[in-house]
Amino acid sequence: MWPEKVTICEVGLRDGLQNEKIILSVEEKLELLDMVVASGIKVIEVGSFVHPKAVPQMADTEKVVKQMRRVDGVEYRALIPNLKGLERAYAAGLTKAKLTVSVSESHCINNFNQTPLEMMAGFVPCVEYAAKHNINVSGALSSAWGCAFEGKIPLQQIEKIVREYLKLGITELSLSDATGMGNPRQVYEIGSYMVKTFPQVKWVLHFHNTRDMALSNIVAGIQAGITTFDGAFAGLGGCPYIPGASGNIATEDAIHMLHEMGIDTGVDLLKAIATARRAQQMISHEAASSVLKAGRCEDLTSERARHQDNK
Amino acid sequence: MWPEKVTICEVGLRDGLQNEKIILSVEEKLELLDMVVASGIKVIEVGSFVHPKAVPQMADTEKVVKQMRRVDGVEYRALIPNLKGLERAYAAGLTKAKLTVSVSESHCINNFNQTPLEMMAGFVPCVEYAAKHNINVSGALSSAWGCAFEGKIPLQQIEKIVREYLKLGITELSLSDATGMGNPRQVYEIGSYMVKTFPQVKWVLHFHNTRDMALSNIVAGIQAGITTFDGAFAGLGGCPYIPGASGNIATEDAIHMLHEMGIDTGVDLLKAIATARRAQQMISHEAASSVLKAGRCEDLTSERARHQDNK
Repeated sequence: MWPEKVTICEVGLRDGLQNEKIILSVEEKLELLDMVVASGIKVIEVGSFVHPKAVPQMADTEKVVKQMRRVDGVEYRALIPNLKGLERAYAAGLTKAKLTVSVSESHCINNFNQTPLEMMAGFVPCVEYAAKHNINVSGALSSAWGCAFEGKIPLQQIEKIVREYLKLGITELSLSDATGMGNPRQVYEIGSYMVKTFPQVKWVLHFHNTRDMALSNIVAGIQAGITTFDGAFAGLGGCPYIPGASGNIATEDAIHMLHEMGIDTGVDLLKAIATARRAQQMISHEAASSVLKAGRCEDLTSERARHQDNK
Repeated sequence: MWPEKVTICEVGLRDGLQNEKIILSVEEKLELLDMVVASGIKVIEVGSFVHPKAVPQMADTEKVVKQMRRVDGVEYRALIPNLKGLERAYAAGLTKAKLTVSVSESHCINNFNQTPLEMMAGFVPCVEYAAKHNINVSGALSSAWGCAFEGKIPLQQIEKIVREYLKLGITELSLSDATGMGNPRQVYEIGSYMVKTFPQVKWVLHFHNTRDMALSNIVAGIQAGITTFDGAFAGLGGCPYIPGASGNIATEDAIHMLHEMGIDTGVDLLKAIATARRAQQMISHEAASSVLKAGRCEDLTSERARHQDNK
């Protein structure tokens, strides 16, 4: 019933930091990136190539990509909104790009004055450029688990966007929940349907812990047959619409749960916790990470054991 | 696959408040109790009859029980450590008592200088007294999902305690996780085993959200066939061994998730959130409740909709 291994992708440097008030320096970002790599994480979203004025926290992504120490076997990707962003990413030396579109018509029109399909028409030159320059492309479907404007999105609408991505030749797709509206029953049902209907797709799930359902959603995703999930160190990220709300599921909380379940992630949990602790220092406020606060299950046992020995 | 209805028992007045520094007045406790009942919750742990010096927060349970307004159809229970506690509970007018024993030898010996079976020998006069006075008795197995001293507890050890409870004629049993060490795979596996092996038992699961796994554990418990879970308003409770750690799963977070999953709880979620908000005011610090902070999924959608209308 349970897979032997699950992959956690670290998106803290992008989706985590982009909602923080404090803007980290390139040096700080590179320090965190080195720690993430050292912990054993193999897929890392290092930033985004959006307009610098739109997301000031990501304005230095070019510098991060140019200066970062690259380790073989690690995938470094960035979020790309359009061809111009892709050209910048390629010039900086990236070979993996993630396109993104909201499955919600209202969300898309409100934020970009375009329907999802109109936005995706703009992906055609990106895919052509990527093919020419050997850039690997994945696609994200945001608001897939619920939309701040529309509430639940009908399955057919999500499926329509999946099919558009497939037409573009993109077969790694993430279903994203930036507002924490997904629940485990929904994740199991939609996840199972997607895995069954599109076996050629490498599915990734991206959950925020806004209403504490992210770990349940990861378990439900695993039960649906999906084994790749995003997380952000220290649970950074927040929700664009809800001041003070929790952000991405904390990478270390996800890894801790998976290890407790006997599922391998290839990550050194203590190093992942150290990354989270360092990130928390940098952002200068308490992070929404449970394991950072409470420690691992085994820490409790071994501390009590030591305490007993000293009695 | 999913049940139509799940029952949430409110333990905030006992397990929630007993770990808070601020000791609430009888009036405050009664106010919270009235709010809990008004929200539609039908099973409420109102306090405990332990020694007043051991848990000062519970010293006034007698007064709470004597003064509380009772509503038909609501079960008011208290935690009882021994016959003396049961006599006090009965004198105050309670007709439901919960006995508790740790399944961990070390935990039991360390806290009470008795093995679990020695402690349970003390339950015999309790059960006799209860039978004579028409008091309904349930039993809790603490440290069932992990122990601060011993780590994971072997299934056989848990099963041994279950059989002892059954010998006493107690058939409502809760498997309790005060240190938040349980994980969803374990809950599914042990839960399924217990449901299958002891179909005569009414199972209750009690999870703390110390490492963010409580909602996943509730979902796993449901998948194992269990439909009754404890929660505490505003997620009060903490962990006796970890300062600052999260406490019980927040009642309102559990109800919110279940409702999002299309599972009925019979509880008015907005009223449960109001109870949590009031409890948070009383304890004077931020509570570990996600829904209290972020609101319901539908709040986000309806607020955005209003915002759009006003544009």
